[in-house]
Amino acid sequence: MHGAKEGMTRLKLTVAYRGAGFAGWQIQPGQRTVQAEVQAVLRRLCGVPVVVHSAARTDSGVHALGQVAHCDVPGARAGIAWRKSLNSLLPDDACVTAVEAVRPDFHARYDAVAKIYAYTLWTEREYVLPQRRDYVWRHAGLDLAAMDAAALAFVGTHDFSAFQNVGTPLKSTVRTVSALWRAPGITPQEVVWRIRADGFLKQMVRNIVGCLVAVGRGRLDPGAVAGLLAGGDRNLAPETAPPQGLCLEQVEY
Amino acid sequence: MHGAKEGMTRLKLTVAYRGAGFAGWQIQPGQRTVQAEVQAVLRRLCGVPVVVHSAARTDSGVHALGQVAHCDVPGARAGIAWRKSLNSLLPDDACVTAVEAVRPDFHARYDAVAKIYAYTLWTEREYVLPQRRDYVWRHAGLDLAAMDAAALAFVGTHDFSAFQNVGTPLKSTVRTVSALWRAPGITPQEVVWRIRADGFLKQMVRNIVGCLVAVGRGRLDPGAVAGLLAGGDRNLAPETAPPQGLCLEQVEY
Repeated sequence: MHGAKEGMTRLKLTVAYRGAGFAGWQIQPGQRTVQAEVQAVLRRLCGVPVVVHSAARTDSGVHALGQVAHCDVPGARAGIAWRKSLNSLLPDDACVTAVEAVRPDFHARYDAVAKIYAYTLWTEREYVLPQRRDYVWRHAGLDLAAMDAAALAFVGTHDFSAFQNVGTPLKSTVRTVSALWRAPGITPQEVVWRIRADGFLKQMVRNIVGCLVAVGRGRLDPGAVAGLLAGGDRNLAPETAPPQGLCLEQVEY
Repeated sequence: MHGAKEGMTRLKLTVAYRGAGFAGWQIQPGQRTVQAEVQAVLRRLCGVPVVVHSAARTDSGVHALGQVAHCDVPGARAGIAWRKSLNSLLPDDACVTAVEAVRPDFHARYDAVAKIYAYTLWTEREYVLPQRRDYVWRHAGLDLAAMDAAALAFVGTHDFSAFQNVGTPLKSTVRTVSALWRAPGITPQEVVWRIRADGFLKQMVRNIVGCLVAVGRGRLDPGAVAGLLAGGDRNLAPETAPPQGLCLEQVEY
């Protein structure tokens, strides 16, 4: 039912983009989106409209290093050097890092077993390096040990309703976070929180990071996080972290 | 003669900037430069014109993480939280990472004993990550071992006339390169050449990197580099590397 039609070849694309210039992944009338840009280039290469389905619908301003999408192209075009051709036509703020022909029923979203997002915080109070400004959220003086303690509450299988913003109704708001860990950033002033889960609700990572930062600022007790999660009330959980700190790093199949 | 006047305090500023938006460091009529931006902010804070002297005059488009400059501010302003105040007024693409009061005869340029520049090459042929595009020069398929061999020719005390572009006449074109080495970049697709010297001629790093890349592309024999250097003829040496790959990382005192 989701398979490629006769005579079509299904491609798996790995896509990287800088979030600032896009109103997110998903196509929207009158907006510049990554999906629209990729589809426009595929249409030029294939001569027919091509729909691209992604693993994740990243929000406006969110970056990607390893977004994955699939699409069907006419079999007659199978010989195209896809990666080279796509990149020669894509704008400077998006690129395709890998293209492979896959089985006709491969589905970027349904076949994904896990995704990894990274959220970067800038911890120096008085300045942000201009080179890093578009990729971080500024918060100095955070209690990282308290954040580590709070992070543990998110790991496991939970109903993440309290960490979901309003969006498309879903059958289930239960997700399994297999890991949530802190890592060094690419500069000494940065700290990165990485989260791996089987799926994410709308703005779930940004809501979790907003909660961790509330803990790091001493506005929320690490011990209170489990209760917020169990309570399921979005209105009681802390603010959503801004998009520019977030990056979709990897989709696993 | 270069010392601070009576009643003035000499400050040492460490400055970082993204090169793309600036016509280089040095003030020029009708151009947006880093020096002009920093001086404008200092004038606002001090109420009088303040001249800023840098260690290096980076070219248009060249980045900095550790440019150093000095300036004299009225002693009556000594209590200002300089770093915080400067950063609150500087534009997004420049910041001051450190400010310290120094002895009245400290000179950012004359007292510098060495500078370290980094030049980043992007080695993947078919794409550039959008996040890294503004900080790299694209060259795939380089023979890195040949470049390593060629790099050795530059180390030591040499007349670097063949690697100097036309600029202000200088008393001497002899400089000592104490190190020129290859290092990994912040992504697997990048390779960084770092160079440390007691001083640099105009576009010397970019000319050296242009030469290394010519070697890496097989257009120049590694063994020919010493001859180009000894010959002193800029017209015989390879092209100048573009500015966006270059970053002034550190000035040593």
